[in-house]
Amino acid sequence: MGKTPSIAVILAGCGNKDGAEIHESTLTLWAIHRHGANYQCYAPDRKQHHVLNHITGEEMAEERNVLIEAARIARGNIRSLARFDEKEHDILIIPGGFGAAKNLCTYAFDGPDCTVDETVARAVKAMYQAKKPIGALCIAPVILARLIPDIVVTTGQDPQTAGNIQQMGGRHQQTTHGEIAVDTANRIVTTPCYMLDARVDQIGEGADRLVDALLKMLK
Amino acid sequence: MGKTPSIAVILAGCGNKDGAEIHESTLTLWAIHRHGANYQCYAPDRKQHHVLNHITGEEMAEERNVLIEAARIARGNIRSLARFDEKEHDILIIPGGFGAAKNLCTYAFDGPDCTVDETVARAVKAMYQAKKPIGALCIAPVILARLIPDIVVTTGQDPQTAGNIQQMGGRHQQTTHGEIAVDTANRIVTTPCYMLDARVDQIGEGADRLVDALLKMLK
Repeated sequence: MGKTPSIAVILAGCGNKDGAEIHESTLTLWAIHRHGANYQCYAPDRKQHHVLNHITGEEMAEERNVLIEAARIARGNIRSLARFDEKEHDILIIPGGFGAAKNLCTYAFDGPDCTVDETVARAVKAMYQAKKPIGALCIAPVILARLIPDIVVTTGQDPQTAGNIQQMGGRHQQTTHGEIAVDTANRIVTTPCYMLDARVDQIGEGADRLVDALLKMLK
Repeated sequence: MGKTPSIAVILAGCGNKDGAEIHESTLTLWAIHRHGANYQCYAPDRKQHHVLNHITGEEMAEERNVLIEAARIARGNIRSLARFDEKEHDILIIPGGFGAAKNLCTYAFDGPDCTVDETVARAVKAMYQAKKPIGALCIAPVILARLIPDIVVTTGQDPQTAGNIQQMGGRHQQTTHGEIAVDTANRIVTTPCYMLDARVDQIGEGADRLVDALLKMLK
């Protein structure tokens, strides 16, 4: 490559119950810097599906914007996903959290019949067509399975999610803590993270292996 | 020790501009698990000083609660700091972010004349009197300097912050990325993190060294 690889990261808000999972997102950014690459965060500029109190799990009578909340994880350095240009980036990564299944697509409500946010679908398809590697953590691989036919992904060990991925035309590979599934033909890497009952250092291991495998695909 | 060390972590909300810095908080939890210890998150159950849009930096016409927002980083497993009992924990750590200087104390407004939230002051003093190690990241060392006389801390290289720490009766030790200041006599460890213009992996290095040094004080 020569130049420093640029990795686009799509965030779904800020908080595991209604946005991007914070540990998975942070440890993705950490792994990117640890491997000497750079990142640019993106999020859809749209209203969150809802706002949940993360202690009680109850809905709060509030409205929040996915892009503005995701900026908390990105320390303000974030762009609207509508501005995404695949020519600027070498790799795309989508961390998990319920926001990936509520704000980036409707998987939390519609399962295998889900629809994907238009800006997310455009970014994923553009990177895939440009043969650039794509990574996804936790529940986010369902977005890739919905958009790209016949890919191999992992969401850990949950049979229902695995079944849904098959129904969308994908193949599910079982994994445990810190492991990754690598689809070499399609240049896709996935890792289960908090789809398993993980400790924080296991999230770091998964994110680190995922970023490492994606960067190796550039060589 | 024998039993797994228990580390209390005080969070100041969720987001670097008005709450706990997310990377510092997450990488503190990551380092705790990486070293085989356990954590329990706490936050004051009080209104945030304000809510800032993390893209524009402008104040939003909203009210948020420090404990409820901090629960996003803690994935729901968090307690009100009013319930803190020093007998349950071996170590206390306070990550940084402007929330530490706006919600845990009034340093952002009053500098060296700041007052510290009552529940924060009680937790810090109880741990210090029990001779249990205390860690602080980024700007959070100012809280320790305000509460405990004649301690050595670091907030990196900013002369004004160093001067304020001296005015509060502390001593400032200059550090750079990933370094820690260790006050062995007072069992206090600090690291500059985003008080410097750091990359995310440097935040991980600082948090990792801080947790390692605190755990070694238990031996």
